Amino acid sequence: MSLLEDLKWRYATKKMNGTPVAQEKVDYILEAARLAPTSSGLHPYRVIEISNRELKAKIQPIAYGQSQIVDSSHIIIFAAYDSYTKERVEAPFAQQAEERGLPSGFADDYKNNLYTQLSALSQEQQFNHAARQAYIGFGLAVAAAAEQKIDATPMEGFNNQQLDALLELDKLGLKSVTILALGYRDEANDWLVNLKKVRPSHEDFIIKFN
Amino acid sequence: MSLLEDLKWRYATKKMNGTPVAQEKVDYILEAARLAPTSSGLHPYRVIEISNRELKAKIQPIAYGQSQIVDSSHIIIFAAYDSYTKERVEAPFAQQAEERGLPSGFADDYKNNLYTQLSALSQEQQFNHAARQAYIGFGLAVAAAAEQKIDATPMEGFNNQQLDALLELDKLGLKSVTILALGYRDEANDWLVNLKKVRPSHEDFIIKFN
Repeated sequence: MSLLEDLKWRYATKKMNGTPVAQEKVDYILEAARLAPTSSGLHPYRVIEISNRELKAKIQPIAYGQSQIVDSSHIIIFAAYDSYTKERVEAPFAQQAEERGLPSGFADDYKNNLYTQLSALSQEQQFNHAARQAYIGFGLAVAAAAEQKIDATPMEGFNNQQLDALLELDKLGLKSVTILALGYRDEANDWLVNLKKVRPSHEDFIIKFN
Repeated sequence: MSLLEDLKWRYATKKMNGTPVAQEKVDYILEAARLAPTSSGLHPYRVIEISNRELKAKIQPIAYGQSQIVDSSHIIIFAAYDSYTKERVEAPFAQQAEERGLPSGFADDYKNNLYTQLSALSQEQQFNHAARQAYIGFGLAVAAAAEQKIDATPMEGFNNQQLDALLELDKLGLKSVTILALGYRDEANDWLVNLKKVRPSHEDFIIKFN
């Protein structure tokens, strides 16, 4: 199936059936996020993979009781760095130098200029920039799940602060931005499964200057 | 090829060769963005497709002279709504009612609650929320381009205000967030084409609670 066919197959599954997803499928989906492009290669976010049932049960009320949190096999939390510290900007360049066999200062001008620009932003603006990058990986994880015929529910409906506190994400400098619940649809009990996918029309969505 | 193979094939092309991309390929890539999931189905962004050479030449200095703006075949600007007006929140629900044959008030409680929440945010927060949704579609467009073996450069390096002014996006209530340049790599002249793709390691990227 093509990507477009995969995207038509997928939908925001409202009711999952509890069947476990094989770890190799979960790994595949997260690998798509890992390979995602990000601004200047900073990759300023991490993914948190949770299959533990007790922990998911604690998260369910934080997500306003939504059933996919517990009926999914895994939930993947996308969490962005709260700011761009000097270390977070420098580390990807150091890694590039090492893995590409380049001198350690190969991109110092670019890197220093980048850090100057990012650190001039407010902390909230830095976080918002990092969060946007996380959504690129999130989009690729959605695509990877659909390709693997794993149902995936994008979920923004949760209390971010409470989730961050439960998982102690502040100790890692991370703040949750969105969740992808992975599992299998319960077709008989999902009100959304047979409803038409609705999107803005081509004419409405695409503005052309040709 | 699988999505992961496509993502390994792609890279942020630094030098394109000017070859045009067939319109059906461009349409395919934008269709992936159109099919992307968004928060509550609001789809609060639009894509601007530009192939006009004179217009691209005007945009190049706004993008700090980057060559992909003019050496690409098309540039796709992702632009998010500047805020969530009542109409922008209501329109997707009206469309759902019509296309799904549901009564027009089928989701009034959900919709009104959503509008109350979104309109309580500052205008900047509303825009940031919309911008994140645009990045999901951006990620899917990156995947679609790679699947179609079209080179695509994600570009955040441009002056957003100047671009918005040039295209008069304020008249549409839109603000540019990112650009995807579409074209074909100039292998002989692209310094990045043969360099190893560098990403955070699995161990660094994935945090597990199992």
